[in-house]
Amino acid sequence: MKSKLLVGVLGATLFGASMSTPVYADKAEDAIKYRQGVFTAFRWHFGAMGAMVRGKVDYDAEQFAHHATQLAALTRMPKEGFIEGSDFGDTAAKAELWENLDDVNARFDKLISDADALLAVSGGSLGDVRPAFGAVAKNCKGCHDNYKEE
Amino acid sequence: MKSKLLVGVLGATLFGASMSTPVYADKAEDAIKYRQGVFTAFRWHFGAMGAMVRGKVDYDAEQFAHHATQLAALTRMPKEGFIEGSDFGDTAAKAELWENLDDVNARFDKLISDADALLAVSGGSLGDVRPAFGAVAKNCKGCHDNYKEE
Repeated sequence: MKSKLLVGVLGATLFGASMSTPVYADKAEDAIKYRQGVFTAFRWHFGAMGAMVRGKVDYDAEQFAHHATQLAALTRMPKEGFIEGSDFGDTAAKAELWENLDDVNARFDKLISDADALLAVSGGSLGDVRPAFGAVAKNCKGCHDNYKEE
Repeated sequence: MKSKLLVGVLGATLFGASMSTPVYADKAEDAIKYRQGVFTAFRWHFGAMGAMVRGKVDYDAEQFAHHATQLAALTRMPKEGFIEGSDFGDTAAKAELWENLDDVNARFDKLISDADALLAVSGGSLGDVRPAFGAVAKNCKGCHDNYKEE
């Protein structure tokens, strides 16, 4: 960021031009921030459910259903953030991700359907929701193991 | 972060203890990251619609409706991130926000209903969606002017 800013300031000073970063690069940076923002929100809701499933906080069916609702909505979002050109910079996505976009997209579709299945049973007992929560969690691990620098 | 890590490492070294940050502070930090993540995702979808409304990219009713759907889902999320104790640290929330939580919550409810109204007209012509988009935008500005350090 610092060197990019310097280039921009130098460009503006020497040539009287505005910041010279191409729109395309801005869009790629925005895409990286976007998908990271989505995953951060994802972790909040996933973590709140996980704490109940692991017995760290009391199970509350209504609260669990709230988080399942938000999680299902969020699963629709990250896919569009993996745009062309957003494979560099402040991202933990491995090179393998960009070589296997069909698999990545199929995994996101699986995540969506598993989150919908969790939402469908939410409101029920802890015994009802635990296996569906575990199925969602498997998606996270599967994708991170293959495509994310940890 | 660096000093916190140092304290943790020192604590672990000197006393054989695990990281000493209280769970409460972790939760507050998570809440700040969570709401910032939600707003980052919010900007992505809001910005995509804004580019169409301002004529920077061609209007595509289906794409617009996609972004309106995601935006409506996201408006449900930030409120729960403004938890007690999350008024310090890496946040742009002004002190005034914490003194006016009833007003802040009412503003979030208005944002939700305006985003729903936008979603309801999305799929229509640019003339249909423009006023509803402007109504959503007013919420951002109103809340930022009062409660966010810019």
